[in-house]
Amino acid sequence: MTKPLNVGMIGYGFMGRAHSNAYRKVNHFFDLEYRPVLKAACARSADKVKAFADKWGYESIETDWRKLIERKDIDVVDICVPNNLHAEIAIAAAEAGKMILCEKPLARTGPEALRMVEAVEKSKVPNMVWYNYRRVPAVTLAKKIIDDGKLGRIFHYRSQFLQDWTINPELPQGGTALWRLDVEAAGSGVTGDLLAHAIDLAMWLNGPIAELNAMTETFVKERKHNLTGKVEKVGIDDACAFLARFQNGSLSLFESTRYARGHKALFTFEINGEHASIAWDLHDLHRLQYFDHRDEGIVRGWRSIHVSDGDHPYMGNWWVPGLQIGYEHSFVHQVADFLDGLAKGTLAQPDFRTAYHTQLVLDAIMASAKERSWKKVEA
Amino acid sequence: MTKPLNVGMIGYGFMGRAHSNAYRKVNHFFDLEYRPVLKAACARSADKVKAFADKWGYESIETDWRKLIERKDIDVVDICVPNNLHAEIAIAAAEAGKMILCEKPLARTGPEALRMVEAVEKSKVPNMVWYNYRRVPAVTLAKKIIDDGKLGRIFHYRSQFLQDWTINPELPQGGTALWRLDVEAAGSGVTGDLLAHAIDLAMWLNGPIAELNAMTETFVKERKHNLTGKVEKVGIDDACAFLARFQNGSLSLFESTRYARGHKALFTFEINGEHASIAWDLHDLHRLQYFDHRDEGIVRGWRSIHVSDGDHPYMGNWWVPGLQIGYEHSFVHQVADFLDGLAKGTLAQPDFRTAYHTQLVLDAIMASAKERSWKKVEA
Amino acid sequence: MTKPLNVGMIGYGFMGRAHSNAYRKVNHFFDLEYRPVLKAACARSADKVKAFADKWGYESIETDWRKLIERKDIDVVDICVPNNLHAEIAIAAAEAGKMILCEKPLARTGPEALRMVEAVEKSKVPNMVWYNYRRVPAVTLAKKIIDDGKLGRIFHYRSQFLQDWTINPELPQGGTALWRLDVEAAGSGVTGDLLAHAIDLAMWLNGPIAELNAMTETFVKERKHNLTGKVEKVGIDDACAFLARFQNGSLSLFESTRYARGHKALFTFEINGEHASIAWDLHDLHRLQYFDHRDEGIVRGWRSIHVSDGDHPYMGNWWVPGLQIGYEHSFVHQVADFLDGLAKGTLAQPDFRTAYHTQLVLDAIMASAKERSWKKVEA
Amino acid sequence: MTKPLNVGMIGYGFMGRAHSNAYRKVNHFFDLEYRPVLKAACARSADKVKAFADKWGYESIETDWRKLIERKDIDVVDICVPNNLHAEIAIAAAEAGKMILCEKPLARTGPEALRMVEAVEKSKVPNMVWYNYRRVPAVTLAKKIIDDGKLGRIFHYRSQFLQDWTINPELPQGGTALWRLDVEAAGSGVTGDLLAHAIDLAMWLNGPIAELNAMTETFVKERKHNLTGKVEKVGIDDACAFLARFQNGSLSLFESTRYARGHKALFTFEINGEHASIAWDLHDLHRLQYFDHRDEGIVRGWRSIHVSDGDHPYMGNWWVPGLQIGYEHSFVHQVADFLDGLAKGTLAQPDFRTAYHTQLVLDAIMASAKERSWKKVEA
Repeated sequence: MTKPLNVGMIGYGFMGRAHSNAYRKVNHFFDLEYRPVLKAACARSADKVKAFADKWGYESIETDWRKLIERKDIDVVDICVPNNLHAEIAIAAAEAGKMILCEKPLARTGPEALRMVEAVEKSKVPNMVWYNYRRVPAVTLAKKIIDDGKLGRIFHYRSQFLQDWTINPELPQGGTALWRLDVEAAGSGVTGDLLAHAIDLAMWLNGPIAELNAMTETFVKERKHNLTGKVEKVGIDDACAFLARFQNGSLSLFESTRYARGHKALFTFEINGEHASIAWDLHDLHRLQYFDHRDEGIVRGWRSIHVSDGDHPYMGNWWVPGLQIGYEHSFVHQVADFLDGLAKGTLAQPDFRTAYHTQLVLDAIMASAKERSWKKVEA
Repeated sequence: MTKPLNVGMIGYGFMGRAHSNAYRKVNHFFDLEYRPVLKAACARSADKVKAFADKWGYESIETDWRKLIERKDIDVVDICVPNNLHAEIAIAAAEAGKMILCEKPLARTGPEALRMVEAVEKSKVPNMVWYNYRRVPAVTLAKKIIDDGKLGRIFHYRSQFLQDWTINPELPQGGTALWRLDVEAAGSGVTGDLLAHAIDLAMWLNGPIAELNAMTETFVKERKHNLTGKVEKVGIDDACAFLARFQNGSLSLFESTRYARGHKALFTFEINGEHASIAWDLHDLHRLQYFDHRDEGIVRGWRSIHVSDGDHPYMGNWWVPGLQIGYEHSFVHQVADFLDGLAKGTLAQPDFRTAYHTQLVLDAIMASAKERSWKKVEA
Repeated sequence: MTKPLNVGMIGYGFMGRAHSNAYRKVNHFFDLEYRPVLKAACARSADKVKAFADKWGYESIETDWRKLIERKDIDVVDICVPNNLHAEIAIAAAEAGKMILCEKPLARTGPEALRMVEAVEKSKVPNMVWYNYRRVPAVTLAKKIIDDGKLGRIFHYRSQFLQDWTINPELPQGGTALWRLDVEAAGSGVTGDLLAHAIDLAMWLNGPIAELNAMTETFVKERKHNLTGKVEKVGIDDACAFLARFQNGSLSLFESTRYARGHKALFTFEINGEHASIAWDLHDLHRLQYFDHRDEGIVRGWRSIHVSDGDHPYMGNWWVPGLQIGYEHSFVHQVADFLDGLAKGTLAQPDFRTAYHTQLVLDAIMASAKERSWKKVEA
Repeated sequence: MTKPLNVGMIGYGFMGRAHSNAYRKVNHFFDLEYRPVLKAACARSADKVKAFADKWGYESIETDWRKLIERKDIDVVDICVPNNLHAEIAIAAAEAGKMILCEKPLARTGPEALRMVEAVEKSKVPNMVWYNYRRVPAVTLAKKIIDDGKLGRIFHYRSQFLQDWTINPELPQGGTALWRLDVEAAGSGVTGDLLAHAIDLAMWLNGPIAELNAMTETFVKERKHNLTGKVEKVGIDDACAFLARFQNGSLSLFESTRYARGHKALFTFEINGEHASIAWDLHDLHRLQYFDHRDEGIVRGWRSIHVSDGDHPYMGNWWVPGLQIGYEHSFVHQVADFLDGLAKGTLAQPDFRTAYHTQLVLDAIMASAKERSWKKVEA
């Protein structure tokens, strides 16, 4: 029999849905010792959290996250609220001895993240950050290919996360739906929202970033603010790009924007090694592009791998070859790995400390863009 | 509050999983009056059905489908067993007044299917056949584009369903896992398994087929049979292709095989109209290709539509633009439409009668291939 | 020093240009014993052929093809006129002892073609038919891959040639520019114009076709005729599709049309073997798709080969890897091979006899479509 | 009758062939007042230049470029030698009153280029630099789309030129074939060779670059030198990437390398505007990707434009829709435009002055990479 693991969810937005779906599905597709139980959902608005809880089958609700954290019947706290609330909740949850699953980016700044790391390490509570794209099967396969040594010496890494949803200058900022445009709530714009994902994957696949040089831009300088009702200065970065050098000597470019017309969520990476190259793209997340120079010359070409076979990462748990899975499955995989790690005593990555290193890169980006100079990334 | 609708599932294989997943997810993503309740799962092997029921949360099990049908607490019977069992179960279920959701193809032959149609129509029970691909959002969008009249007069329709999983002659036939290779259980090979899907979509999108001319082939003539342990003649068609004319005057080619090396499940259709054309491919099911001749000449080209926006069919219920869904969601959509139809009194298609017409095309294919001549399709 | 080979060109249309370009370029890129010399161009209209000759540097003109054939200073006659004139000219040229390069299809019917074959074989004059697509480097590479045995037993061959330029019913038929729509001049519609190419490649790559079953359609039944000025019945086939079985046991589908909106000249073939598959598409003629099942499972996928390396067929004579060539180069390669064969005494294919076999397939198609039955292809 | 324009070609390498081919073909496909005549070819090695002249039909040879420039029968000097020789030849040719067509980059540095600009402007001789990619029809179409105002405000421009041919550390540097790896001959590595093209297109399409921040890398530090026979330090940049801001406020990333395994000559650009976006890729140079947000929402997608219609730039002069041209045609178009400009008195771009501005960007790149700081680009 599976052991219940009681989840207390804080937040009910996009990520609240994505995580709840993962908790509900994971045991149907993965054989695990633990089984998440949707114990309680928490948000300030009783009406809204009640509706959310009913929809997803949470057994109870709370309107004060402190109450949720105090509850004895909660094993895991899942933090799905704006970035500015992560630290306070996570530290309190750690002190209450709860396991913590926190949305990304871990915090708004490195120092804020460090306090969170110290809290979970002091309390020794299992912790994880929802950098979900590591568990897209094609991405996990890329990691395996790299770890198998197929690429040889790495020369280049490049990554983009391009969207186009904020081009309209009439779009307001702030409030429940648009907190990502409010610098107070989000900490930064595309840097923390999108590049954080790109950097998490990059360092997982290609090791630490040594130094970088960034530029940012805010194309629309003022937007109406939903909380104040007034037109206010936009504090976030609409776009950010940076050059980087990894510790392994490879050169790199990263770019993110919400002003790339035609790209809804074009998250890509490409890595060029001495012997082979890999490329991936979220818009067709079930495919991995692979080029191997060791193939016979006349039939050498980029291979489009349809990552849907039983021997591809995670795919043996789903359907049959040729039938693709989607975005939401990355969360199911992350929950599966977390639960599996819990059973085995080897916790799934990325944990808070790993996510803290990503935060240090984000800090270096913001500093570099501001000071217009190269910045070493803190080790 | 949602009204419960008690489901009795017969079978626990691939489709048992796909449907169970749909029942469990549908109310999390769609606002519906009804809510499926996993009441009972049924299969001959008590051990296996027990494991399946535990995994998916079915409240009880049965080992005799007649018992399941008799149960008062079952509203809907879901038939997920090999094709040779569909008719007997469905007719009995209809007589017992149960709603019926039956896997495709409806039956092994037209006459067998007709008995099923008569049974459900006599009993007036809601009924539906799991031709799930109609509810892939890109396919539903294709239907909408056609219904909007964007294509004009139709000249061509073509469709393929290509796989490569039976090339190995050592693969046996028959038994639980490989009943699709056993003509007694399946009725036919790729014709009933794969072309049935292609024909269902074709007639939904392009109207009735008037006549056709088919050829079939069995590349591997003998395989070990799992039920007898002996090498036996293979009775199914490994490949089937046919020419067709639709009632609307368009010309058509269909092809299906399990011997197309490199194609795991390449299910495609393309329709060419006077003004515009559409193409789709299951390997990238979240995309629709669209060409509109009325676009300005110098910037005219095939558009690759990433069907993931809120105004695309079904997609407003899932994530955000750019984030794709997968194969399993087509079943969730079909359940949602069935439940919605139930509430509104307008039952979701395809029902048994519609699926019977597909069966008549399958019969015409087999007759044409055998007699090497054109066959009219019965109206 | 290269030896001159005096060319007499009959016709000045699209193919006249394509061939003239090939003659002028071939020695700049290929080291050959022979060098084509543009000796004379011939057409009924003195003005038009003069302009053509000036443009391309033909040394003289003729307005009667019989005069051209009689000229002692002509070594090779190149026939670029409508299909209904091929036989008479070719037979006369053969009798005059000229080498003959004839546009495709060789003739309007098999018997007409046979007379041409007999004439050149009797006169023992070198002869060739301009099935140029064999010399697109990606296609030549496909042939090499097949000849190397990489595919194993062949299960399927499919080919399309889809265009969309005659959808407009106001387009007239007949005359210089539109003789392809006039059955008297062309013999047939898409069958002789487009499927002829598809069949030439198919039999080159996959061997003889044993039997076939075809359908044809004329979507626009009447068009104004440019020669008579009246609306007249359209005698050609606008679309044609057929099922076929090759002598090697593989199953096949062919389709051609000029009513596939969005496809300018989508000429494709795909061949599925036991171990590997190949696909090609004229719209991106410099790429070959290749799938090899013997690749390691987790990194297996269709390879997109950019056929532009020095070790790819013909490509060592052009630029550097990554830089593509285009349509016209296929003619250059065919001339190069013809000249090389001439020097070595092993004539380049396809010659008239080979093209006659293609003609027999075309005849079988027309007969099958008319009689609505399977037809064996004459050996 | 066309007027002859006598060409004196200096060099006989890759570019010598590409330009000679263009001179020979241009009048067959374009109606022009002028006709290039291949008057003389010049190189130090009499044997080699003789072979080249014979191959391409140059009427005479020279072994001293000073002699060539002095010849009265030469109208145009075409400079196809390594970069370090451009300035001296071009300045002497200008002083001799010759028109000059110079390979790119114009020079090794801005000051060197400026002397060349001053020479041609003083002598008032027509001059042009072979930034050939402007005349790939898809690229010219992109320019037209931009000039038509379809994009609106520009937010982003990105460009790559990725190759993989120098990964092997055993590849030597220097000499005739490999002068591009010798810093003395080339001036720089990928920056002058590849990024120069990317920058020329970028400034043509998107206006001047205001400032940039670059990094460069030399992955293989030492290579055998073909001129000395010794292993020597590699002075060129193997890879270069930079961030930039255009004067129009758009943000930009550029990258170039010869170490991107799998990319033979992947030259791309993408431009994102308020209303529409454009992308192009040399590996499929006959296609242009176009996204227009003003398309109806549910059928909105990236359009793959097959740039082969009669109303596409230059394409009316070639074949028929669907039939692609290749790399070499960009040179034919540039010659056509040069000759046409000559006849009309409006000289084709880019001329030396325009190419000098590209040179200033190259200088800024090298300075920025060395000093690790942002650099304004000289206006």
